[in-house]
Amino acid sequence: MLSNSDCIFCKIVAGTIPSTKLFEDDSAIAILDINPITFGHSLYIAKEHYATLLDVPEGKLGGIVKNLQKVVSALLKATGCEGFNIIQNNTRCAGQLVPHLHFHIVPRRPNDPIRFNWQIGTYQKEESQKLAEDIKKALGK
Amino acid sequence: MLSNSDCIFCKIVAGTIPSTKLFEDDSAIAILDINPITFGHSLYIAKEHYATLLDVPEGKLGGIVKNLQKVVSALLKATGCEGFNIIQNNTRCAGQLVPHLHFHIVPRRPNDPIRFNWQIGTYQKEESQKLAEDIKKALGK
Repeated sequence: MLSNSDCIFCKIVAGTIPSTKLFEDDSAIAILDINPITFGHSLYIAKEHYATLLDVPEGKLGGIVKNLQKVVSALLKATGCEGFNIIQNNTRCAGQLVPHLHFHIVPRRPNDPIRFNWQIGTYQKEESQKLAEDIKKALGK
Repeated sequence: MLSNSDCIFCKIVAGTIPSTKLFEDDSAIAILDINPITFGHSLYIAKEHYATLLDVPEGKLGGIVKNLQKVVSALLKATGCEGFNIIQNNTRCAGQLVPHLHFHIVPRRPNDPIRFNWQIGTYQKEESQKLAEDIKKALGK
């Protein structure tokens, strides 16, 4: 199994750093986030050490997330929450603090104080067409 | 295929509402978000109509996300971005505006203006232990 001896999440997976573990299967664990943004905020962590989503080998992501829904259901039941966000950050500039693949599960309640600073922009028509062409080119189409 | 005649994303999947489509496979499409929070902000949308992540039948999630990484790679290449967030909102109270499973892909750059209002709390020891027990009970353990 891929592991990195300097990685705090690898140490949590191995049990050499303590955590409040909620769930474990062959490819992931779930723990309470020690700095919760809402009551019940948890982390669903790949057991293998992949720095970001893009480091997961093709075909392996489905296995990693196969029990994500099960953990979410239990979290909602235990917290009495109605909704949730799945947030997965990649690289430091995107807010990833630990470079080891993990998904934040954030239970939500109506009118809770969580706000994403979601300031929307718009594209000029030519701009979005050019961008879409560039992306499709990068996709090899 | 599950479809909902009142759903805007089902109409986009069917092509009866226009979109700037980037990618399509048997279980998902990717389009540019028409209200981007960063340049290149895109949506990866399940083709079948599932209101939230919890409505996806067991075993189907892996198939839906199997090309998510491929789309992200192309987006980063086309936008020159270094990082990205995957954000998946469930129910209105969590900011889900269209009740049809979709993943926001948000390309990020160092020092860009995107900020999540990420105010952390802490648990009392007994509180987190009680919460973990409740979650494990809900997981049937």
